[in-house]
Amino acid sequence: MEKIEHIGIAVKDLEVSNKLFASLFDAVHYKEEEVASEGVKTSFFKKGPNKIELLQATNPESPIAKFIAKKGEGVHHIAFAVADIKAEITRLKKAGFVVLNDQPKKGADNKWVAFLHPKTTNGVLIELCQEIVSHTPTL
Amino acid sequence: MEKIEHIGIAVKDLEVSNKLFASLFDAVHYKEEEVASEGVKTSFFKKGPNKIELLQATNPESPIAKFIAKKGEGVHHIAFAVADIKAEITRLKKAGFVVLNDQPKKGADNKWVAFLHPKTTNGVLIELCQEIVSHTPTL
Repeated sequence: MEKIEHIGIAVKDLEVSNKLFASLFDAVHYKEEEVASEGVKTSFFKKGPNKIELLQATNPESPIAKFIAKKGEGVHHIAFAVADIKAEITRLKKAGFVVLNDQPKKGADNKWVAFLHPKTTNGVLIELCQEIVSHTPTL
Repeated sequence: MEKIEHIGIAVKDLEVSNKLFASLFDAVHYKEEEVASEGVKTSFFKKGPNKIELLQATNPESPIAKFIAKKGEGVHHIAFAVADIKAEITRLKKAGFVVLNDQPKKGADNKWVAFLHPKTTNGVLIELCQEIVSHTPTL
């Protein structure tokens, strides 16, 4: 793991929270993105080498809706950038961590992602993420 | 705010969690430090430009003991590095945030720190921190 890629924060209303965090950071978010498969609308702020991702549920079955119902708004996950997500999944499983995705899946912000169950990481939901690189086919 | 300086994670047993996070990060913590005024023992891991701080309470009145009693182990705070903590406190108060410390106080890892109440930041306890620089008196 190379650095904190981003922190994911569960919010009830993205528009309200975009203004709140813009005021906090003295800078506006640089993009919004919907991830339909996860039932979330997201926005991203940049702070130097790190990002802050705000997440709002788009349906009641979304993991973010369930999180907020249980715990209220707040930090949902911590994402670490990894160079080789498949190798990290293998290493972490061998070390006894419960990886929720056997295979990486497509997440927001052009990333392959996989999550570790918080019961094996002191209550912290940890995301591994690796930039998706599109290869130009060789001729 | 320049970057995520560190993420603070509340743990029940520092020794157990040091091993857990060493296994997670594939690297051991680089220091431990007790902050008697806060009733905590801490350890630090480095991931590129960011740090992870584990916090264990040293007495039942410690904020970390109260946090764990209420919410269990997990992310306790997010700390952002700032260049001028006094100016940031002034700016954020003016913007309507509740700053818990009128004056910065000495925190772990040679930092001046101040906290924002989570009720004004979507449930996230935010720490501002600035490196303490010791000036050599001019002759």
